[in-house]
Formats: sequence, C-alpha cells, structure tokens
Amino acid sequence: MTLIKAYNTVRQRSEQICKPLKTEDYVVQPVVDVSPPKWHLGHTTWFFETFILKPNLEGYKEFDPEYNFVFNSYYETIGARVIRTDRGNLSRPGVEDVYKYRAYVDAAMQELLNEEVKAELRELIVLGLNHEEQHQELLWTDIKYILGHNPLFPAYDTNIDGSVNKENSFGKFLDIENGIYEVGYSGNAFCFDNELERHKVYLQDFSIAQELVTNGEYLEFINAGGYTNFRFWHSEGWDWVKNNHIPNPLYWHNIDGEWYHYTLAGLKPVDLVAALCHISFYEAAAFAAWKGMRLPTEFEWEIASEHFDWGRRWEWTNSAYLPYPGFKKAEGAIGEYNGKFMINQMVLRGASEVTPPGHSRHTYRNFFHPHLRWQYTGIRLVK
Amino acid sequence: MTLIKAYNTVRQRSEQICKPLKTEDYVVQPVVDVSPPKWHLGHTTWFFETFILKPNLEGYKEFDPEYNFVFNSYYETIGARVIRTDRGNLSRPGVEDVYKYRAYVDAAMQELLNEEVKAELRELIVLGLNHEEQHQELLWTDIKYILGHNPLFPAYDTNIDGSVNKENSFGKFLDIENGIYEVGYSGNAFCFDNELERHKVYLQDFSIAQELVTNGEYLEFINAGGYTNFRFWHSEGWDWVKNNHIPNPLYWHNIDGEWYHYTLAGLKPVDLVAALCHISFYEAAAFAAWKGMRLPTEFEWEIASEHFDWGRRWEWTNSAYLPYPGFKKAEGAIGEYNGKFMINQMVLRGASEVTPPGHSRHTYRNFFHPHLRWQYTGIRLVK
Amino acid sequence: MTLIKAYNTVRQRSEQICKPLKTEDYVVQPVVDVSPPKWHLGHTTWFFETFILKPNLEGYKEFDPEYNFVFNSYYETIGARVIRTDRGNLSRPGVEDVYKYRAYVDAAMQELLNEEVKAELRELIVLGLNHEEQHQELLWTDIKYILGHNPLFPAYDTNIDGSVNKENSFGKFLDIENGIYEVGYSGNAFCFDNELERHKVYLQDFSIAQELVTNGEYLEFINAGGYTNFRFWHSEGWDWVKNNHIPNPLYWHNIDGEWYHYTLAGLKPVDLVAALCHISFYEAAAFAAWKGMRLPTEFEWEIASEHFDWGRRWEWTNSAYLPYPGFKKAEGAIGEYNGKFMINQMVLRGASEVTPPGHSRHTYRNFFHPHLRWQYTGIRLVK
Amino acid sequence: MTLIKAYNTVRQRSEQICKPLKTEDYVVQPVVDVSPPKWHLGHTTWFFETFILKPNLEGYKEFDPEYNFVFNSYYETIGARVIRTDRGNLSRPGVEDVYKYRAYVDAAMQELLNEEVKAELRELIVLGLNHEEQHQELLWTDIKYILGHNPLFPAYDTNIDGSVNKENSFGKFLDIENGIYEVGYSGNAFCFDNELERHKVYLQDFSIAQELVTNGEYLEFINAGGYTNFRFWHSEGWDWVKNNHIPNPLYWHNIDGEWYHYTLAGLKPVDLVAALCHISFYEAAAFAAWKGMRLPTEFEWEIASEHFDWGRRWEWTNSAYLPYPGFKKAEGAIGEYNGKFMINQMVLRGASEVTPPGHSRHTYRNFFHPHLRWQYTGIRLVK
Repeated sequence: MTLIKAYNTVRQRSEQICKPLKTEDYVVQPVVDVSPPKWHLGHTTWFFETFILKPNLEGYKEFDPEYNFVFNSYYETIGARVIRTDRGNLSRPGVEDVYKYRAYVDAAMQELLNEEVKAELRELIVLGLNHEEQHQELLWTDIKYILGHNPLFPAYDTNIDGSVNKENSFGKFLDIENGIYEVGYSGNAFCFDNELERHKVYLQDFSIAQELVTNGEYLEFINAGGYTNFRFWHSEGWDWVKNNHIPNPLYWHNIDGEWYHYTLAGLKPVDLVAALCHISFYEAAAFAAWKGMRLPTEFEWEIASEHFDWGRRWEWTNSAYLPYPGFKKAEGAIGEYNGKFMINQMVLRGASEVTPPGHSRHTYRNFFHPHLRWQYTGIRLVK
Repeated sequence: MTLIKAYNTVRQRSEQICKPLKTEDYVVQPVVDVSPPKWHLGHTTWFFETFILKPNLEGYKEFDPEYNFVFNSYYETIGARVIRTDRGNLSRPGVEDVYKYRAYVDAAMQELLNEEVKAELRELIVLGLNHEEQHQELLWTDIKYILGHNPLFPAYDTNIDGSVNKENSFGKFLDIENGIYEVGYSGNAFCFDNELERHKVYLQDFSIAQELVTNGEYLEFINAGGYTNFRFWHSEGWDWVKNNHIPNPLYWHNIDGEWYHYTLAGLKPVDLVAALCHISFYEAAAFAAWKGMRLPTEFEWEIASEHFDWGRRWEWTNSAYLPYPGFKKAEGAIGEYNGKFMINQMVLRGASEVTPPGHSRHTYRNFFHPHLRWQYTGIRLVK
Repeated sequence: MTLIKAYNTVRQRSEQICKPLKTEDYVVQPVVDVSPPKWHLGHTTWFFETFILKPNLEGYKEFDPEYNFVFNSYYETIGARVIRTDRGNLSRPGVEDVYKYRAYVDAAMQELLNEEVKAELRELIVLGLNHEEQHQELLWTDIKYILGHNPLFPAYDTNIDGSVNKENSFGKFLDIENGIYEVGYSGNAFCFDNELERHKVYLQDFSIAQELVTNGEYLEFINAGGYTNFRFWHSEGWDWVKNNHIPNPLYWHNIDGEWYHYTLAGLKPVDLVAALCHISFYEAAAFAAWKGMRLPTEFEWEIASEHFDWGRRWEWTNSAYLPYPGFKKAEGAIGEYNGKFMINQMVLRGASEVTPPGHSRHTYRNFFHPHLRWQYTGIRLVK
Repeated sequence: MTLIKAYNTVRQRSEQICKPLKTEDYVVQPVVDVSPPKWHLGHTTWFFETFILKPNLEGYKEFDPEYNFVFNSYYETIGARVIRTDRGNLSRPGVEDVYKYRAYVDAAMQELLNEEVKAELRELIVLGLNHEEQHQELLWTDIKYILGHNPLFPAYDTNIDGSVNKENSFGKFLDIENGIYEVGYSGNAFCFDNELERHKVYLQDFSIAQELVTNGEYLEFINAGGYTNFRFWHSEGWDWVKNNHIPNPLYWHNIDGEWYHYTLAGLKPVDLVAALCHISFYEAAAFAAWKGMRLPTEFEWEIASEHFDWGRRWEWTNSAYLPYPGFKKAEGAIGEYNGKFMINQMVLRGASEVTPPGHSRHTYRNFFHPHLRWQYTGIRLVK
C-alpha cells in the first residue's frame, strides 16, 4: 500500500468509528482516563499538523494557532496544553470545526504526499498513523465508556454482535521448555521504540492455557466470594476493591438475579462461554491466585503466542512496563512517546476486537495502570 | 396576564436564551456549581411534569420514565437522582430530545391550562414559573462560565453591550435613622417561602452608598495589595485566596499590563466607571474592610433600597441566610425548596442584568456560599 | 482579686487539668480541630511572652526564639506558624520543656506584676487570662477526644462523676413577649470584642424550654429513624450524615444492644434523664425539626436566659456568628482575635461543665462550625 | 550462635536504638509511611506473641487482648487492625507499657527457647527475628524523619559521624559480559520467600560504576536545572516534582546559599565527596537520564556486586518488584509477608548504614514505591 493510501485509510477509519455518534457524545469526559471523541479526532490531526506539516510543507498555514493549546496531550516540549481533566469542559472547538480541521490537514497532507517523501519523514508519518490507530482503539473504548455509563444505556449500534468471542478448548495447556529465547521486534516494518532492542531472555519451563478465561469461569470466582476475600488480592488491589466497592467486572449489572453487561449493542445477558472482558490487573491476578495459577510474563507470552490463537483481548501479563536492554528515546518531542510512562504500569500483550486491522503483532507492548479496565482486557492462565 | 400567557412567555424565554448556543455548549459542566444548559432546560420541564401534570392532568403519560433519574435536582423525596457532579458526563438525552420533552410537556400544559385551574394548583404553577425564572438566570451565568472558561473565549453574542452599567453619583451616602422597621413580603402576588413572615426588626442608624462600587475603585484595592494582605480578609477567605491563587475578580485577565474581562460579547477592556461584577463574598468583605467600611445587613438593604436605584447586581450583604420568624416549610417535596439550604450561605439582595423581567422585588432573598462568584455579584458599602 | 493572684490562679488551673495525663497524651492530635495538650500549654504561654513580656518587661530575654514558630496559632501578623494540621507531628519541644517555658514566663510575669501596671497593659493581661481560660475548656474537650478515640478507652479520672447533669422539669416552656430588648455586654468587667456594642433588637413572641433536651428524648429521635430520613436535615447536614456514616452523638457506642458513651471516667451506660451532649448543629436542628420546633436565636436565648438555669451545655442557637452593629477590631495582632472568624460558624450560648469558673455570662458568644461536636454541646427547644 | 542468644541480641538492639529518644518521640507519625517508634517496638513483639507463643507455649496468657487491635499491621487474617494512618493518634498504650509488653513476651520466649524447638517453629522464630531487624532499619529511618521534620532540628546523637561514607574511585566502571547467570538465594541460612527460587537469567553486556553517586555529582544536576526540566523525568515523576514542589533530596536545606542536610547528629554542611542519600526512584532515574546513563536491573546488580564494595546505601534498580519463577506464598498469615506487595514498587539492592549487622546479602530484595525517599537510598550508574 502506498503511503498516501495508507494515510487515507487510517484517517477515514477514525471518522467511520464516530459515524453513529450524536454531536453530544463527542463532548463529554466521564472520567479522567476517557477522552471526548472530538478530542481524539483533533489530537491525532494536531500530530500531523505539528510534526509533519509545519516543519515540512512549505507555505503551510496553521489552521488555528489556539488549537495547539487544546489538542496537545502529553508533549510537554510543545508549549502549554489543556490539562487532561479539563478536556470534557471544552464545548469549543465544536464537532463541525474539528472535522473542518481534519479536512484542512488532510488536504495539506495530500499535497505533501504527492511529492516524494524522504525516509526520515516517511517514518514520522508512519508513526503518526500508528499513533492514530492507537487512538482508534481508544475511541472505541471511550465511546463504550461514555454510553455505558449513561443511565439510559444507549446502544452505539444494535447490529454489532459481540458474541463471536467464544472459547473452544477449555482446560488445554501448552508446555514450553526452558532455554534462551529471543524477544523484541525484528524486521523492517514499523514498530514502536519500546519493542526494541530485540534481545535474549532465559525462560524456565511453563504451561500456558490455550484459551482465554470465560465469563462462566469468572462467575465461579464471584460466586465463591472472590471479591470479599483479601487472600487472593494484592494489598493495593484489595484497597481498590474496598474503596471503590467493586463487586464484578466493568459493565456487568446484576438485575433481578440475572447477569447482564453493557455492550456496544446495548445491555445484553452475559454469555458464559464467551471470553471474559473488562477486568483490571488486580482482578486478573486475584482470579489466577484463586485458581492456584498465575499470569504469564510478557516474554512467556511472546514465545508461546506462536502456538495459540490470540487477538480478541488484551491479555494482562505479570510484567511491569520497563525498557528493554538498549532502549533509546528519540530526540525531541517524539522521544516523549513511550519511555516516560515506564513506571507503575503493567504490560498487556495481544490485541482486541477493537484493535485496528494491521495494528497488532507478537512483539507489541501495550500498558496500563493495574486498576484500569475500560480496555478490552482478558486473562490467560499459566501454571 | 393570564396564566397560560405567563406560562408560554416564561417557557419561551428559556429557549430564547439558548438560541445562540452550539449543540456542544449545552452539554458540558466545567465545575460542580455550573450545570449544562440542556440540564436546566430538562429540569425545569421535569418540575412541571412531576408536580403539575402527573398528579393533575388525567390520562397524562410520562414522556420517559428514566428522565426523573436524569433531571431531578435536589428533591430527595422523588427517587434517585443523578448526582450533581455527574451532570456533565451525560451525552444523552441529547439536545433535540430535551426540546422534544419541552414541547411534549408544553402541549400537555396547554391542555391543562385551557380548563379552569383551582387556586392551589395555580399557586404551584406560579411556583414552577418562578422556579424556571431562577434557572433562566442560572442559564445566563452558566453559559457565561462555560464560554468564558474556554481557551478560545468564544462570544455568546457580539452585539450584547455590557457597558451600560455605569455609576453616576460617586461617594454619595444615604442616612437612615434607627427605629423599628418592617421587613419581608406583604401583598398578594407571588413570593418565595423564605420572604415570610413579614416581621419587625430594629435597625440602628446607618449610611449606605447611593451607588455600587466600580471596577476602578476595586482596581485601587488590587493595586494596593489587597489580595496579598491577610488583614482585610476573613480567615476562611484568606485560605480561599491562597489555596486558589485568586488575584482578581472572576473573568478578569491581565494581558500585557492591561486589564480585560470576559463578557458575553467576548474579551473586552475593563471599564473603570462601570459597576464591579463577579466577586465573592470574601472579596466584597475584604474590599469593605480595606475601605474602613462594611457591607449592609439584608434588612438595612431592604429598608434603604426604597431610596436608591438597584437591580444591576446582586449585592452581597453581611447577613447569613436564615429563616424569618414564623418560617414554615411546605408539605412534601415542595417543602425542600428553600429551608434546607439555610446554613453556611450569605444573603444577596437586588437583582442583576440577567434577572428575568418581573423576577425581582425589595424583599427577594438570593443566597450563595461565600466563595462563589459566577453570579453577577457586586458591592454596596455602608459606613 | 489582685491581678497577680488572678494570673497565678488561671495559670495553675491549666496545669492542674493536665495532671492525670501521661506524657504521651500531651503529644497527639487525632483530628485537625483537636490540639495536643502540650500545644495548648505552650500557646497560652507564648501569648504572654509575645504580647506582654517582650514589649513591656525591660530586659526580658525570650525563652527560645524558635518557639514563636511552634506555638503561634492564627496570628498571621507574628511571623510564620506551624500549620495547624502539623501540631501532632511535633515531638519537640517535649513536655518537660513546655513546663520549663511556663515556669520561665510565669517568673517574668511575677516581676512585671509586682510593679504597677498601666490600664492598657492590664487589659491585655486580662485578655491573656481569658484566652487561657478558653484554652482550658479546649484542654478538657481535646483530652476527652484523645482518650475517647483510643481503642483502649482509658479513663482520665475514674472518680469524675458526670451524672449530675439531670433535668427536672420536663416539657415546661417559658413565654417571652415581643418588644424591643437590649443585647450585648454592658458593665465594667471583661468581655470579648464580639459582645459589643450593646444594642437594641426587636424580638417576636416565643416560648422557650425550661430544660435541656435529655439523652432519653434524643434516643427517641434515633429510634424513630432520625438519622435515616433526609426530611429533618439541612442539605449539608444530610451530606455530613451520609459521608461520615453518623448514626448517633459523638462518644456513643451501641454494644450488644445497650447504649454506652465515653466519659472522662471511662465507658458508661447512657443515662436517659441526663442532658444530651456532643451533638453537631446539624443534629440539633434535625432533632428540633423532628419535634416540630426550632432552636432559639442567640438574642432570644440572651433575653430568656434570665429566667432559666443554664451553664451545663453549650447550647446551639440558630444564629450565624456575625458582628454586632458598631463592632470594631482592635489594632494589630490582637485584632485578629474574633472578627476574622465571622463566617460559616453558628453561635453557641451558655457554658458547660468544663468551662472555667467565672468564664461565663449571659452575653458570651461561643461559635463553631455546624458539623463539630467535640465540645459539650446540647439543645434547648423553642416553639 | 544459639537461637536464644540470637533472640536476645536482636531484641535488645531494638531497645538500644530507642535509648536516646524522649518519650514524646515514640508517639508521633508525621506521614503515613513513618510509624511511631513505640508502634515498631510493640508490633515486633506482637509478632512473637501471636505467631510463636500463643500457638506453641502451653499455658501462655496473652499480655492484653486489645493489643492485637493496636499492633497488628497488615495481617488481615488476624482480625481488625488500627488503620495505618491512625497509629500516630494513639497515646496509649504508653511507652512504659510497651516496654512491659516486651519484657513479658521476652520472658515467655526464654521459657520456650530453653526447651528444644522443632525445625518448623525454629524457622518461624528466625523469621520473627529477621522481621524485627527489618523494623530496626525502619526505626532508624522513622526516627530520622520525626526529628528531621521538627523545626528545632534536634539531634538524635551528636556523636554520630555520618562522614565516613566517602567515595574513592570516581568514574571507574566494571564490565560484565553477557551470558546466563544464576540469581536468587541458595544456601541453608535464612532468606525471605521473595529471594526464591534461585533461577537462571540472561544478561546482556553492561558496565557498572564501581562507586555510588556523590553529593557533589548530584549538586551538578541540581545546578544544571535538573528539577525544572521535564525531559529527564518519568511522567509521574515530573508530576511528583511539581505537585510537591521538590527542589532537592530529602533533608537538604539551602541556608543563605550554602547546602546543609539534617543528619542524626543534627544539621550539617553537605559533604560533596560523600555518597548521595535520600532520593526517590524518580530522582535517581532523572539523574541517570541527565547523565546519559541508566540504573542497573536487580539482576545486573546481583551479579556485579561480587566485584564492588556495597552496603552503605540502598541502591535503586530499574526492576519492578515481581515474583521470581516458582515463587510460593506460605500458608496462613505468614503468607501475607511479601507476595501481596508485588505491584507498583521498585526493587532496591544493597543495604545501608542503618541496616542491622548480618541482615544483608547479595540476593536481598528490598522494595519501595518510587516516590519514597526516607530510606537511605542512593544511586549507582550503568552505561
């Protein structure tokens, strides 16, 4: 695929995701981790304007100089930014203006992409596209959060069928032998800086589940009092359960004794043989402890995943998000991309049903704080 | 004016106020005290549906049973309500749905008002209209807050001219003699329960300013270090200044050494001879202390206001919001209207440039917590 | 009594109160409103050193220049102070050093008081003694809080008998006629600035209870679900009940179905005919609302108290703490004494079983925030 | 050494550490992470009473059943506990009672230790002694915090000389070759469960500093604006710097342009060639980033430490605190010892000048949250 085609595909997909939204849905920010959809649309555009167009397209005129202030996220290098908790307070720029901003930047990008692009710039554009794909996944999860926390439980699209995520081979485990293995990205395509350097690790023997944990298996944990027995929990996980009165996975509701969960198609009965979703690292680890098992490390997962089917859930590992040997930050603002988050977060491996096509690989390292669960997170056990 | 005409006038005015808004502006809640405009539109409608139509219009069918949950405010009698800080998280019901809700309830109200209405019900409808008028003033102040805290400083209407609020007779004071006076509402028109019973009070001699404090006078206080000298402040006021880093009235911005303030027409230079606006009780009291004067009590104000021009600012008094002798709560949910707020708030008297026509009188008691300043508040001095 | 004798009496009483304490009891600060006993002993001493000795006793050498930093309370005029929440973190100066500090200042005060003292200085010394008497009452209430919140419930003195506070004439009400009355201090003895100026007020007819509300009467309120029905509460009072899970007065414990309360003699059964104690303004007002009555205003109380017995409980009034007409702050640091607290607090009238002898009068105005209840507070009803 | 001798040596050392304290110093808790010394003395004793004496010494009578409530720390298995932030509010049991408790338990332990002790019980006693040694280190660091945060800066002991911690071979780096190494405890003496299982790891080539970073080197970082440039910091570290206004290591004070730090001997000038102390993981990582280097992993440290001198600082590694392959929790309350803390903490390796003799080894894993710095923490660089 040419770069211009890749650009247009990715950019259009973001707008496609937002199609079913009402204008009002673009605006709100129910919790700090969830951003308003219009912010995602603006921020990904700001990335191209700031890092690609302004330094590289001669004669490019900024769409609106105030937008840097509004759509910058974490890039401290690039001036003042709207603090993250404030995003949901901003009614302007309106949704229409954000789409105009996108069209304006896209037009300028066509101009730039019609000419030949040097390797270094090309790399930066590919990074911008991968960045936008990351925000596409966040668009899905944030839209789900916004609609799923509304007392009217509005559906995003009643035709979406989430029930395909069934497990098949319950209880099967794969044995992996100890030895030196290589992990980290190798190849010539795109990868993030946190997947490098490829390096050797030593793994002990381990057995890893062929399938993800199902809703039914997790329900046994709930029914066995899993949320009321501190024994299975990390100390901070137990505090999280008690302080937030957590009794079940996110989006689950017990209505008159039956379990329902909010899906993008609305409120639906929980399917017991489908893959569990929307649990925190704390819950994943507590469930594993209750089972007398554990979560895989990210390296165990990377090696074993050659042998099983994956990609419907982001899978919590018991690895902290830390740099690989030889990790190097890029120069300038782009260098803020990953390295500065390498503390207090846990690695997730895999991908999910809302990960953009092509945006997954064995070496991909996703990461979140251990209490978060609005991503499509699941559990795979190791014994 | 007939009741049906009064009803339609008030109801249309709420929608008129929102005309210049974009859909997005209806949704956000930047701080806990400010509500999203669509919430005001829905909540005032819910009042008529809940207290008038459901008990009194035979065959009336609720628009949507979930709306009670969304648009109830403080009426604990009437089931669960969306907690106040959550209002800004709700993208649904959308703006269009809220207008449909208004139209639906208005149609039913026409039906009810076309028949003869008994005195008791009439009273409740008049209360509902006064309630909506209170929310009209809040619509203005909340819209100003939403737009005035956006980094783009969008105008609500560039044709609004706020510059009429000029003072004329600087430094003139009226002398009022000591004696027994009567305060509180008397008459046959509408008043709130907190204006009753009319009763006698004894006032000492006092002198009260003919005019409001101007921006220019207040600027002297700022320039004299008023915000950095604890001596003029209440202890809790001083904590408020320090913890919130308050250096000037709300909406003021010092840009390159010049003072600007956000108005509904956008960012404008501060007019030194216009009446000061948007200060907290703490600031009002500190300014008075710096001047060697004080604020009036609400009874001094009520008696003296016969002799001066008022109605452009809500004027802070040094009276706490407390019940009058003989104050009685109404039965049921309506009884929650005023009495339960009679703690930790200070009384404001007067009215403001955004008070609906007809919604002001000498005996009207407005009240806010002493740190709040998004209302059109001002200062009148007593010595 | 000569000034020197008065001085020594007051100063020795503070130390007498602390006699039964262990060294450890002098140090802790379980909540922000409660100060460590050693801080009270030091702070009252610092007052004499700072305002009396340093400016007036020639050749006086400060005991330790660092102590200003430690023992200053609110006097912003007098340099940096240890912020209030930090008092319980300070193990030094130790208890022994604080007593040395007291002895040192007392010796210097003897020297000063052996000479003739000018009227103005005399007044300041009398203020210092009244200030120390206020802290004596706080010593009692803070010691009770410290010991009463220890899981071992240690007694302060097992011989203290709190059971004398019995009521006698249940249900009797005194009628007071409307008219102009005078309130505020008049006379030549000491009073605080907040009791001045004496001035006229107009009171309506009212009937006030001869006796305080008893534990038994309050228990009926509890048993009738008083703490679970929002209807009786101020809106902020109801939030306080829910956020803090308040089910009964402070120090009450329901153990196996029986009501006990912590007293200075240890944990004792609640005596149903004794005067209720340790309730917040919110609880007092809710109880009155449940009874269909109300609390008196501070002026009603002042006038009526000529006709009933008082002095065992500080009695909550429905008056906010505000300045009297003609109120004037003193110059300098002493001027910070009262005026700056005149916001968000409610007036208590009377005195309590731990008020120092001679430290009470009809015109005395005590004041606390409406949620506080570690003082010996009670309820007198008006109808 | 016999077990009884080991017991007595360890137990006496705890009391020895507290010798220079005033009674008041035993009581306070200035921040949540610091416990009152008397709590440490009681808690370590409670461990022996609860886990050794009650189940194993026939006829043993609990000293005071309430003490479980007061001196339990994290052991959720063993009933209610005083929540950690409340420890500093407890004046009772007093210091004298805590010493009586220690003497009582020690006497019972002599009785138990005079008989032969089975292997399993012996192991538990050794765990109790290692537990007490851990609290001895905390006693030192907590006492330093309590005295070092008092505005009088009292010395613990003016004869303590902290100046021995000098570095000698600046700039020397050791090269370690890549390969498979073994890490984790092996041997027959005591180790904690978190040091097991011993297992293989693969290390890449690395060079590690022979010496710790000095105060002088760190001062260069301060002077180069290290605390004001976000570029060197983790995102959460930068928030920590800004929210807490951190400008230098803990205990450092810039007085009239000269750098001082609080030591157990009082306030002393900072010695530029001595080893840096009391920095958070965030500061350690930022300093390393500024140098263009990094921190070692815990396994790099474990292997390299055979070749350099260590033991004066706990050294921050860039490893998160996670279980080793094959890690197993013990059954029952003892199982709560380590595993439940394995989230959001970073590993420190080494030991410090206040680590008890014999309580350190190459495989020892200490761990703290990345913002904490009241331990004797230092930096060793890797390139």
